[in-house]
Amino acid sequence: MVVTLLTDFGLEDEYAGVMKGVIHSINPASTLIDLCHQIPPGDIERAGWLLAWSWSYFPKGTVHVVVVDPGVGSARRILVVPHRGHLFLAPDNGVLTQVLARVRRIQAYSVQNRRYFLPNVSDTFHGRDIFAPVAAHLSSGLDPRRLGPRVSSLKRLPLHSAGHRRGEWVGQVIQWDRFGNAVTNLPGELLKRSKGSFEVRVQGYRIQGLQRSYSSATEGTPVAIIGSRGLLEIVVNRGSAIRDLGLSIGDRVKVVRSQ
Amino acid sequence: MVVTLLTDFGLEDEYAGVMKGVIHSINPASTLIDLCHQIPPGDIERAGWLLAWSWSYFPKGTVHVVVVDPGVGSARRILVVPHRGHLFLAPDNGVLTQVLARVRRIQAYSVQNRRYFLPNVSDTFHGRDIFAPVAAHLSSGLDPRRLGPRVSSLKRLPLHSAGHRRGEWVGQVIQWDRFGNAVTNLPGELLKRSKGSFEVRVQGYRIQGLQRSYSSATEGTPVAIIGSRGLLEIVVNRGSAIRDLGLSIGDRVKVVRSQ
Amino acid sequence: MVVTLLTDFGLEDEYAGVMKGVIHSINPASTLIDLCHQIPPGDIERAGWLLAWSWSYFPKGTVHVVVVDPGVGSARRILVVPHRGHLFLAPDNGVLTQVLARVRRIQAYSVQNRRYFLPNVSDTFHGRDIFAPVAAHLSSGLDPRRLGPRVSSLKRLPLHSAGHRRGEWVGQVIQWDRFGNAVTNLPGELLKRSKGSFEVRVQGYRIQGLQRSYSSATEGTPVAIIGSRGLLEIVVNRGSAIRDLGLSIGDRVKVVRSQ
Repeated sequence: MVVTLLTDFGLEDEYAGVMKGVIHSINPASTLIDLCHQIPPGDIERAGWLLAWSWSYFPKGTVHVVVVDPGVGSARRILVVPHRGHLFLAPDNGVLTQVLARVRRIQAYSVQNRRYFLPNVSDTFHGRDIFAPVAAHLSSGLDPRRLGPRVSSLKRLPLHSAGHRRGEWVGQVIQWDRFGNAVTNLPGELLKRSKGSFEVRVQGYRIQGLQRSYSSATEGTPVAIIGSRGLLEIVVNRGSAIRDLGLSIGDRVKVVRSQ
Repeated sequence: MVVTLLTDFGLEDEYAGVMKGVIHSINPASTLIDLCHQIPPGDIERAGWLLAWSWSYFPKGTVHVVVVDPGVGSARRILVVPHRGHLFLAPDNGVLTQVLARVRRIQAYSVQNRRYFLPNVSDTFHGRDIFAPVAAHLSSGLDPRRLGPRVSSLKRLPLHSAGHRRGEWVGQVIQWDRFGNAVTNLPGELLKRSKGSFEVRVQGYRIQGLQRSYSSATEGTPVAIIGSRGLLEIVVNRGSAIRDLGLSIGDRVKVVRSQ
Repeated sequence: MVVTLLTDFGLEDEYAGVMKGVIHSINPASTLIDLCHQIPPGDIERAGWLLAWSWSYFPKGTVHVVVVDPGVGSARRILVVPHRGHLFLAPDNGVLTQVLARVRRIQAYSVQNRRYFLPNVSDTFHGRDIFAPVAAHLSSGLDPRRLGPRVSSLKRLPLHSAGHRRGEWVGQVIQWDRFGNAVTNLPGELLKRSKGSFEVRVQGYRIQGLQRSYSSATEGTPVAIIGSRGLLEIVVNRGSAIRDLGLSIGDRVKVVRSQ
């Protein structure tokens, strides 16, 4: 069974490798897949987006482990949440907000049964001492109910969603990627359906219409595309929208009808 | 069956992980090995060299997937090329030039059969929507002929090769590595066989003879060695030839008989 | 059987991937786990610490391969060392010092039997040509005695250990991690047992007592915790102790009774 790992541990230390050793020691039949270890330290919101954009591409039964956990050692809970045939194991710090955005009635379990932890639990590395062994047991078929009491709510991040007013769509830059593309929360479907031409406005730039792909954009010119997540992205072909246009997470993006 | 991944996706985003989820969903028995995800964005030539230096160390039957694909979403083809018992799946942008350098008559297939793609194909992430599912099917034994029509030519990069004139070998710096070593296209075999002593000239530096290994070089002094790829390399032990000597890809390297 | 890889190859080149290809070609049943490839080039001491903090979390029978090997191509030996049910394959350059710190009588084998190497051994990439194939054979059950003669000593790094004098504990900063935490060689157990309150002194900073976890620390203030390795760490919550306090490896750390 697949176990995915999403952490802010980076790749310079032994942290991710040690987690894999623990998982493999308990369930040698598990298949470990790195989702990402380069989340900026403590960036719960970015981790939440990456998970939301990834999990459904994994097979049913996958255990998704998230260790972006600045509250490690505090009283924050650890939750396991079954959702559409997948299992999510994460600190209760809001990192599952995006995955569970449309789920009203949460069915989750608070991970408390020390029988499934390593014998010695440190205060600073629950990834190794709790998340890894619990994930290994879950991937071996452990019933999540064995881990602790059922809970029906979890922490949620306050996320802005795109809105429509006076004929304009208004959204925000919500993430960046390696290529410097700025991902917005404006759903591509709406723009595709909208009749007539429109203009995207962000930080004083005005971008006409949609390009179909990166390669159809003139080098160095900002364009708008519908990216692989189904969301509007601001892109500079062979450049970086984030750097070249000075965009940041939270910047307002407007889509208005062209005159 | 092994599937190798060579991309310019980096490790900061979910892109490589999502490809693995797709492959594993279709062929749970596949073994996924990262060749490299840190190709500088769009650097087709570097990807081609890394692939050429790697593929033969993998077992027969391996599917080598390359997603360094600045033309994604354009009319560029995607090809699958059987070669010496391996399968290469790559955009037709020249990235297979070095692997197939000595192959005159190409036997390749243009990947067009949407039956083996994900149901929804984006314009920006063919790695997820086309390359990953096709690679999974190939690693499960799919006959490449099922993917599309046979093609007999592909795009090739214009690569310089080392030449010999007036008693001198003339080549170029073709790549760098993490250690700052400058890899040239001068074949080590020729230098080993050449009688007498010789001098390597690059960017005004004159380096006498060959050292056998990094450790035999004085710290901080540039030396020439025959590297692991069988090519002449310019190396600064405990330093960086690229940085310390100011070398760049394309710099001319001459090997002349010493007086 | 698990094979772990610990190298200074980085992730920009094909080196780690090629090693995996070689291992998988010889033993397709092996499970490859990256411990770390981002060791700074030639940093034997850091590699030794990472290995010491990791190996015991892997299952018995694991083959731990270390290729931090600035002496590649020189007369340095390559050793395989059985230890507590694990096998360690490493250059004899001191990198096993920390793992074997308490082992007086070493039982090791000098890797010399070319039958288990690749046919062509370069002078610069023993990771590919010797370490990888030998690790693959070991993970397939090869008796280490088949690799070469028994040796009873190996190179050891001169490591400082923490000491106690005149009522003070005196130790050193021995490593850093991605979060900028400074790991010392002061054993946490001793501090936990020490009655009364104490003060940690490093580079002019005076830190009162122990915090239990990162999250219990005020942002931006240096604190002392017992980290996941059981050692005292100097930490700046949401900051970097290394950068913010200007700490370096080797810096003296004192623990004195508070007045």
